[in-house]
Amino acid sequence: MSKILLIGASGTIGQAVLANLGARHDVITVGRNSGTHRADFSQPGSVAKLFAAVGQVDAIVSTAGNLHFGPLADMTPEQFNLGLQDKLLGQVQLALIGQKYLTDGGSITLTAGILSIEPIRNGASATAVNAAIEGFVAAAAIELPRGLRINAVSPTILTESVGVYGPFFPGFESVPAERAALAYQRSVEGAQTGRVYRVQ
Amino acid sequence: MSKILLIGASGTIGQAVLANLGARHDVITVGRNSGTHRADFSQPGSVAKLFAAVGQVDAIVSTAGNLHFGPLADMTPEQFNLGLQDKLLGQVQLALIGQKYLTDGGSITLTAGILSIEPIRNGASATAVNAAIEGFVAAAAIELPRGLRINAVSPTILTESVGVYGPFFPGFESVPAERAALAYQRSVEGAQTGRVYRVQ
Ligand SMILES: NC(=O)c1ccc[n+]([C@@H]2O[C@H](COP(=O)([O-])OP(=O)(O)OC[C@H]3O[C@@H](n4cnc5c(N)ncnc54)[C@H](OP(=O)(O)O)[C@@H]3O)[C@@H](O)[C@H]2O)c1
Ligand SMILES: NC(=O)c1ccc[n+]([C@@H]2O[C@H](COP(=O)([O-])OP(=O)(O)OC[C@H]3O[C@@H](n4cnc5c(N)ncnc54)[C@H](OP(=O)(O)O)[C@@H]3O)[C@@H](O)[C@H]2O)c1
Repeated sequence: MSKILLIGASGTIGQAVLANLGARHDVITVGRNSGTHRADFSQPGSVAKLFAAVGQVDAIVSTAGNLHFGPLADMTPEQFNLGLQDKLLGQVQLALIGQKYLTDGGSITLTAGILSIEPIRNGASATAVNAAIEGFVAAAAIELPRGLRINAVSPTILTESVGVYGPFFPGFESVPAERAALAYQRSVEGAQTGRVYRVQ
Repeated sequence: MSKILLIGASGTIGQAVLANLGARHDVITVGRNSGTHRADFSQPGSVAKLFAAVGQVDAIVSTAGNLHFGPLADMTPEQFNLGLQDKLLGQVQLALIGQKYLTDGGSITLTAGILSIEPIRNGASATAVNAAIEGFVAAAAIELPRGLRINAVSPTILTESVGVYGPFFPGFESVPAERAALAYQRSVEGAQTGRVYRVQ
């Protein structure tokens, strides 16, 4: 039984990950307005405060992160920066700061998304942010000490989200959140590092 | 003869690109402390001001961008954010704002780097930023109107830079800046879009 910090536990993916990992581990839940601990990782200082409150853990899992969807023709630098400060830098901070709070052999699992390699209309920020997350885990993995590991899960659109995002993903096959959750389990309970688990 | 805006013209890559493109085109040079026009694209508002001064162009080429190199163990969120605000958002802004100033069929060429796919020690920010740039051009390409094109050039370490950065790139073959400049020429004078030209 490991102690796992799950940021985004109340979300569509997060609930499925909580159901999976919670069956065998002690999962501490985090969100801006949900979870045992409250934190908004897009805000400077919030991740440091979170870890100071939670202390040592065996795994860090993030199923959280916002970014701007919209036409390239109208996209402002501020809108593009939103995803950089939230989904990208927010999750990167979980690794930069969290590495000091992980037990030997512990793991970090971040969430990217299929748009990293399959661009769609309105998705220029999403593709950039998800590609950056996938790049970051590949690079961070070769520098982490003490057997620490880091991976990303990169799911396609979830079946549960088709009602909301479906029109943006013409012809994409969806996957149930429960299937995506298996990739988080592989990352946490497996032994690989620097991997992107594509669920599609 | 096209009118080309070249941000970073005074740099190691920029000088070679200027020599190549300048032989056939009217190249307007830009830097923070060099060039005909002065702009620091990491500063909010600077890219808008630059285009307001320069007006319509046929091509935008960037060979500029800074980010933090250093061990993952010590990297702070602020250090990671430096590359997001400078090399990444700075270049992305050239596309977001520049698209309105390009003539029909015009092109945008950004600079990434081999670390996007070949991580090295100290390079977690560089890998993330370069991967994001490569992702951005792939996604932006499918949304640009009027035959506008966008590509990235992703060079390995330049022969001219081995004296400074060589120790960080053990066993990497270097390429002369003049060879890297050919990729910028292919992007500007060719017809492809959404491409990453790897020079290695
Ligand atoms: N749904 C999909 O089809 C899909 C597919 C591929 C990738 N993804 C990616 O997976 C991630 C989660 O997607 P989802 O659909 O599960 O989202 P969701 O249902 O909106 O849930 C997001 C979760 O993260 C928390 N959260 C959001 N922003 C946060 C922040 N800044 N700091 C801390 N916690 C935050 C939310 O709780 P609070 O509201 O309490 O903060 C919530 O628990 C996103 O990055 C998304 O891009 C989703
Ligand atoms: N050198 C290599 O081996 C190599 C290999 C692969 C990729 N790259 C990438 O290629 C890019 C250029 O590298 P380089 O070695 O040619 O750099 P460099 O010699 O330092 O030249 C940088 C150029 O960009 C300008 N510049 C820098 N920051 C700027 C900003 N914020 N706004 C506007 N202009 C700016 C500089 O002029 P001012 O100083 O006047 O601003 C200069 O003209 C970098 O992003 C680097 O990561 C380099």
